[in-house]
Amino acid sequence: MTSSTEGSVRILPLGGLGEIGMNLMVYECQGKLLVFDTGLTFPSPDTPGVDVIIPDIRWLEERKQDVVGIILTHGHEDHIGALPYVWPRLESPIFGTAFTLGLVKMKFKEHDLSTATIREVRHREAFQVGPFNLIFIHVTHSIVDASAVAIRTPIGTLLHSGDFKFDHTPVNGLTSDLFSLAKLGEEGVLALLSDSTNVDRSGSSRSESSVRPALDEQMARAQGLVVCATFSSNIHRIQQIVDSAIAHGRKVVLNGRSMEANVGVARELGFIRLDGDDLVTVKSIKNHERHRLCIISTGSQGEPNSSLMRIAHQEHRDIILGAGDMVILSSKFIPGNERAIWSLINLLYERGVEVVHEKDNPHIHVSGHAPADDLKTMLALTKPRFFIPMHGEPRHLHLHRKLALAMGVAEERSLVMENGDLVELTPNHISIIDRVEHGRVFVDGKGVGDICDIVMRDRRHLSEDGMVVVVMVVAKDGGQLLEGPEILTRGVIHEDENPQMLEEMRETVAQALAIGAKGMDFNEDEQVGASDIAVRALRRFFKKRLGRRPVVLPMVMEM
Amino acid sequence: MTSSTEGSVRILPLGGLGEIGMNLMVYECQGKLLVFDTGLTFPSPDTPGVDVIIPDIRWLEERKQDVVGIILTHGHEDHIGALPYVWPRLESPIFGTAFTLGLVKMKFKEHDLSTATIREVRHREAFQVGPFNLIFIHVTHSIVDASAVAIRTPIGTLLHSGDFKFDHTPVNGLTSDLFSLAKLGEEGVLALLSDSTNVDRSGSSRSESSVRPALDEQMARAQGLVVCATFSSNIHRIQQIVDSAIAHGRKVVLNGRSMEANVGVARELGFIRLDGDDLVTVKSIKNHERHRLCIISTGSQGEPNSSLMRIAHQEHRDIILGAGDMVILSSKFIPGNERAIWSLINLLYERGVEVVHEKDNPHIHVSGHAPADDLKTMLALTKPRFFIPMHGEPRHLHLHRKLALAMGVAEERSLVMENGDLVELTPNHISIIDRVEHGRVFVDGKGVGDICDIVMRDRRHLSEDGMVVVVMVVAKDGGQLLEGPEILTRGVIHEDENPQMLEEMRETVAQALAIGAKGMDFNEDEQVGASDIAVRALRRFFKKRLGRRPVVLPMVMEM
Repeated sequence: MTSSTEGSVRILPLGGLGEIGMNLMVYECQGKLLVFDTGLTFPSPDTPGVDVIIPDIRWLEERKQDVVGIILTHGHEDHIGALPYVWPRLESPIFGTAFTLGLVKMKFKEHDLSTATIREVRHREAFQVGPFNLIFIHVTHSIVDASAVAIRTPIGTLLHSGDFKFDHTPVNGLTSDLFSLAKLGEEGVLALLSDSTNVDRSGSSRSESSVRPALDEQMARAQGLVVCATFSSNIHRIQQIVDSAIAHGRKVVLNGRSMEANVGVARELGFIRLDGDDLVTVKSIKNHERHRLCIISTGSQGEPNSSLMRIAHQEHRDIILGAGDMVILSSKFIPGNERAIWSLINLLYERGVEVVHEKDNPHIHVSGHAPADDLKTMLALTKPRFFIPMHGEPRHLHLHRKLALAMGVAEERSLVMENGDLVELTPNHISIIDRVEHGRVFVDGKGVGDICDIVMRDRRHLSEDGMVVVVMVVAKDGGQLLEGPEILTRGVIHEDENPQMLEEMRETVAQALAIGAKGMDFNEDEQVGASDIAVRALRRFFKKRLGRRPVVLPMVMEM
Repeated sequence: MTSSTEGSVRILPLGGLGEIGMNLMVYECQGKLLVFDTGLTFPSPDTPGVDVIIPDIRWLEERKQDVVGIILTHGHEDHIGALPYVWPRLESPIFGTAFTLGLVKMKFKEHDLSTATIREVRHREAFQVGPFNLIFIHVTHSIVDASAVAIRTPIGTLLHSGDFKFDHTPVNGLTSDLFSLAKLGEEGVLALLSDSTNVDRSGSSRSESSVRPALDEQMARAQGLVVCATFSSNIHRIQQIVDSAIAHGRKVVLNGRSMEANVGVARELGFIRLDGDDLVTVKSIKNHERHRLCIISTGSQGEPNSSLMRIAHQEHRDIILGAGDMVILSSKFIPGNERAIWSLINLLYERGVEVVHEKDNPHIHVSGHAPADDLKTMLALTKPRFFIPMHGEPRHLHLHRKLALAMGVAEERSLVMENGDLVELTPNHISIIDRVEHGRVFVDGKGVGDICDIVMRDRRHLSEDGMVVVVMVVAKDGGQLLEGPEILTRGVIHEDENPQMLEEMRETVAQALAIGAKGMDFNEDEQVGASDIAVRALRRFFKKRLGRRPVVLPMVMEM
């Protein structure tokens, strides 16, 4: 596949299409590549034991010399989390707004990376990166300093929406820059790529500031200690919790590593108003009356190692909750985390703690993503000729495309992309011209990419049926059994309570070896060794005796 | 612990308290035991590879001779699913209404069990079981022929609500028997034990019949084939789908083993109106026009092996869906299944199929459980002196108790039970007097109870970090290494792509064995063998090299 020609732009998602999270989009113009966001995603039950998952960027690495920059639309983990892994392999300059870069610098420090190539961008100020002329446009989202980005190319303007919603009464007064979006629309937008996350919600956005009365209502009736859990990057939410707490005579405690770190960055850069006099450290909680404190904490997703979960388990040294206390989860039930969050809530109820959460009280949290009417407004403002839905699972993408068609985008000028689809866009035509190498890379401990889908499949198999190892020592010449078979199991049966079962397994293998391969349905021309016989005998034993299929591994030592 | 005295009744939940599912409650009067429901629960990511989970009934078994009967309130799996495992160990007579027993008989046939002790009960007809005088009272629920049960004892009447809601316009016209409940209230109810599942929902029940217009709306606009997935035990829902399909000129196809079986039982017993002429078999779908058929299917939970999932994967021989077709999920997103259901929906969207589900269209499904206002109505009708919330997680139980207190139940006359709590109730007092042996029993293949929580912990550990086996042959006398170490891994690294890693592991163990236990932080008085050294060396290797903690298993053969 050759590079893009003069009259076209290419678009290639390496993550974030057909899934939520792990966003990474590549734009190509005149042979130069511009990367938008480098996000991570968190593991699911399908990927046990993994720390985080990042996009496979081997395609980008092969064209490292063509990459002119990495654009960060905002500071959420699903947009910047993979940067410490991606950047060392591309070493391109990084562009973003102040708060986003504040978080990136913190991340780079943790990973011992240089921050020499980080360039701060201001909204509305155009700048050139290779053949791309870029303008960051402020949009409201559940993190401060977020942006849509206009990409001016020789064939026209593309608009990459980033994550956004249209909040007309944001906490800091900075609304989405509707004028800049409308101006682009008036000048002509060739293609809009827009956030699909909440396309299945009707209506327009609820404002972030609508959470304040809901917080006040709880603070007003709270009797004891209040713990308010939210996402540590949601600075406006934290601002409102701080303001509500102080208005109700409570000082503020920051709890959780990322809560302290992110609020630290926000204070330094002026994104939050929080007086040092209103802050109490976790260690000195005991010196204050309970009804005079509000703890702002991480752990809203029921993460097993979070500080809030330790509190719920009564394992926290400084924070003990009981009857009369209140926990407010000012946060989303992120899909996949429901079970963990309900466990957290149940534990707190068992301690007599009252829990306020969005399932019972929908006003206690608002989403940062545009619902259908906001998406229509974005289309109405920008009037794009071509439309590509991004950021979402297949159902979101298909629904968003349908919405754009209903708004007048011509059917042949909109398509649903998948990760790895290389799309060519000209002023009059859009089509998928190739599929490129892409995928997920698992980060587990210090290993990045040494675990692949095959290892994941093995882990799932181990977890479902456990495993049995059969060990034998045979003579180098002739294969006579010298020692064993010995059996080792894990996750199959409780050996201490079923010792006779181990003996049965040994017997089964020993008998099968004595009889040999006959009657075991091996192909006639197969070379059958002791390990084949042992494995087959054990598999049959488990199927017949227990109706199970554990992983059976043979180990034959020759002496 | 002695048996109950003349002046008291004892109540013991062995399942279903503090959790959803696996319901089993025991009532004791004059030393005799009556079992209410014997339900199962389905596995979660915490219990990988398990088929189903049933309550531990060892306590009941020890008092087998005192068990006078098993009462089934209705035919859902979380109330009757454990019966094939529980009944053979108690061999008590089973009491239930016609449809419930129809399902039980089918189950017993599958498990090759005798049905000699099954006794059909009719609503409102009192009968005696040991010291208990019982009356089944009809209640509406998401299955036909469901019941609350009044338990008359020498110290007063207990009311066990079963699963219920107050549907005033049910599909078959049979409302909950409010008169019988009110009459009990008027006569005096000592204690109410009531379903807490939906206590966190406000308002009163939406009627089952309110689903019909929502179905009609979809059937009216559907162009191609319609597949409507729902729970196979929800006979009224199936009736409404059938009626809607026929009204819109579509014949009906029953798809899925349990759909065919349950509808078969319902037709036989007269619980559904479905003319044979309106039925088309799966095999003959191809002989009919697509817009003249409606397939009623199982698989609404995205179960990986369900027929609907095979359809979505385009792996079904007779049912192929594409653009213009519609799938209606007339069912709940059961907590824990969200990920699987969204996968199903995404697959269908990718094929161009339109999907209608309760998250976008809340009218397409209604719950079978009483929300807060129905629970208040139950309390108002029955005016119990004592109140015990049942069927629910801790948060539901605590909220339901709070609701009862707000309705006037005295604080000291209501308590939240956990599984294993033995409660003693007298006319004037209620308290937990003991904790008895209880728990979960895992059914995996043919094994019932041979897998315990320790095996589950091992499976989870295997799935998170994989496992490494190190095998060595040493001399019987002196322990000299004769062969090995050999290394076997699964779920740790991809061996084919990292062969040098295996070599490093072997080297690490060989070196450690050569050096011996010195400098490895063993206690001085510890007896340290080759396997201890090998395990410790490998653990260190993984921690340092990969930041991981696989299960390390040694196998030393002596020769």
